[in-house]
Amino acid sequence: MPRSLDRHSVNTATLGYQMPIGETVDAIARAGFGGIAPWRREVEGGDVDVIARRIRDAGLRVSGYCRSTYIPGTSRAAWAANVDDNRRALRDAARLGAECFVLVVGGLPEGSRDMPGARRQVQDGVADLLAEATTLGVPLALEPLHPMYAADRACVNTIRQALDLCTLLDPARTSHLGIAIDVYHTWWDPELPEAITRAGREGRILAYHVNDWLVPTGDLLMDRGLPGEGVIDLESIGALVRDAGYRGLTEVEVFSHRVWKHPPDRILADCVASIVQGPPTYLQNVR
Amino acid sequence: MPRSLDRHSVNTATLGYQMPIGETVDAIARAGFGGIAPWRREVEGGDVDVIARRIRDAGLRVSGYCRSTYIPGTSRAAWAANVDDNRRALRDAARLGAECFVLVVGGLPEGSRDMPGARRQVQDGVADLLAEATTLGVPLALEPLHPMYAADRACVNTIRQALDLCTLLDPARTSHLGIAIDVYHTWWDPELPEAITRAGREGRILAYHVNDWLVPTGDLLMDRGLPGEGVIDLESIGALVRDAGYRGLTEVEVFSHRVWKHPPDRILADCVASIVQGPPTYLQNVR
Repeated sequence: MPRSLDRHSVNTATLGYQMPIGETVDAIARAGFGGIAPWRREVEGGDVDVIARRIRDAGLRVSGYCRSTYIPGTSRAAWAANVDDNRRALRDAARLGAECFVLVVGGLPEGSRDMPGARRQVQDGVADLLAEATTLGVPLALEPLHPMYAADRACVNTIRQALDLCTLLDPARTSHLGIAIDVYHTWWDPELPEAITRAGREGRILAYHVNDWLVPTGDLLMDRGLPGEGVIDLESIGALVRDAGYRGLTEVEVFSHRVWKHPPDRILADCVASIVQGPPTYLQNVR
Repeated sequence: MPRSLDRHSVNTATLGYQMPIGETVDAIARAGFGGIAPWRREVEGGDVDVIARRIRDAGLRVSGYCRSTYIPGTSRAAWAANVDDNRRALRDAARLGAECFVLVVGGLPEGSRDMPGARRQVQDGVADLLAEATTLGVPLALEPLHPMYAADRACVNTIRQALDLCTLLDPARTSHLGIAIDVYHTWWDPELPEAITRAGREGRILAYHVNDWLVPTGDLLMDRGLPGEGVIDLESIGALVRDAGYRGLTEVEVFSHRVWKHPPDRILADCVASIVQGPPTYLQNVR
């Protein structure tokens, strides 16, 4: 992917939620990025229109709004409440001008071992939300999560599975349902080239997230690397995504206790370095 | 799968390597199991024929011999040394009467980001080993490992990928190349039923390993559950494997710092309970 900063977006999780959203917007714009992906925890309870204006005034696009409430529930009522919650969040996504609403769909309901059942609940929930998304004009981006999150975060775990769900629920390819490709979740997939090519051919790529896989990985959730620090072949995957026709922003999304120890401006400087200069300075973690 | 103990095998890793192999053999037999899966660290350096006799005398089958040296290397010479190492281990597998030699194929060579290259090295290595395995009459069991091990343990990560490799290298289905299905590595797969059915249809299922996925999982390697402790639907997956025609042993393989704190006889008693009584006593870890 092109290395110019204005083609990149910063997911606010990367900065560890250390500042109010207004300051975060300004810091990301000041660092030279072209977009932001805020989280609901930073937006809900605030004045969404004020936040949206601050983002616009800073000259930033909103590459995605993070993220859905997990869909599966222990009862039909719980499921319906989760879907309703997402419907409300979708309206905020529209007010923010988000280019997509990121669906991290959820895993097994508490006490359950029924993966097919969880996946059916997801299918039904996304079908419901698609109607609202179409009305609002905010595309839904199904994000396949790494299989190590299948139990507790997302039972959609491969690009192929996400695309099959898109085909099922939106056969006409209305542009309101697609996927978010995150290298952390998908880099290992032996079918990655075919899957990305198919995603492009079917017009489904709504977002592209970068970060890195560290060896060793000390924690399932909070030990991602900045792009270039780990073993993911970002050049090749970026080329696949570009060749598949994706022209949106490349979003830097890193969850890391190690990174979050630094102040936001330092983290942003490290993100800039990892994008502009490439991997060399970050290789200390690769065995 | 049937719950009778003599249809089950114990992978010695489950016991934390706390005793010499001879004592481990006797303890597993005394507990009522029908088989054992020893590790090379317990066998190499000892008298393999003596160990083989002790296992036979105890009335145990050898459900598998663990495991291959990682195949990919940083050079052609390193690759060849790895393959040679596996050739030697295969001869021990034959002397032990092992029903398969387990291939944990390895991940990225040190300093590499080239997954397709690592996978080509694996393909070439398995092709080489297949000739030796055929001569010795010891089947090679490719074990797809969970995608979270793609970087450092195995770049074969789904049943479909393993079966495709079997088809490529052994189109005639000689019975000397197949797969080991481990629920820990495969339970999340949205294509699991189709993949297991295909594995059976193509005559490739050489081993079946059980354990459990805990929520939360505190460590990528050493936090597995005993069967029934976690969220894997062992009943359904066991039925799929049985319906696919597998009639071999069900091997209990658990890596866990928590379990390993107990003495081997206590661990064996816990394994027995988890198999005979089923999940109820072990549910405390499921959120």
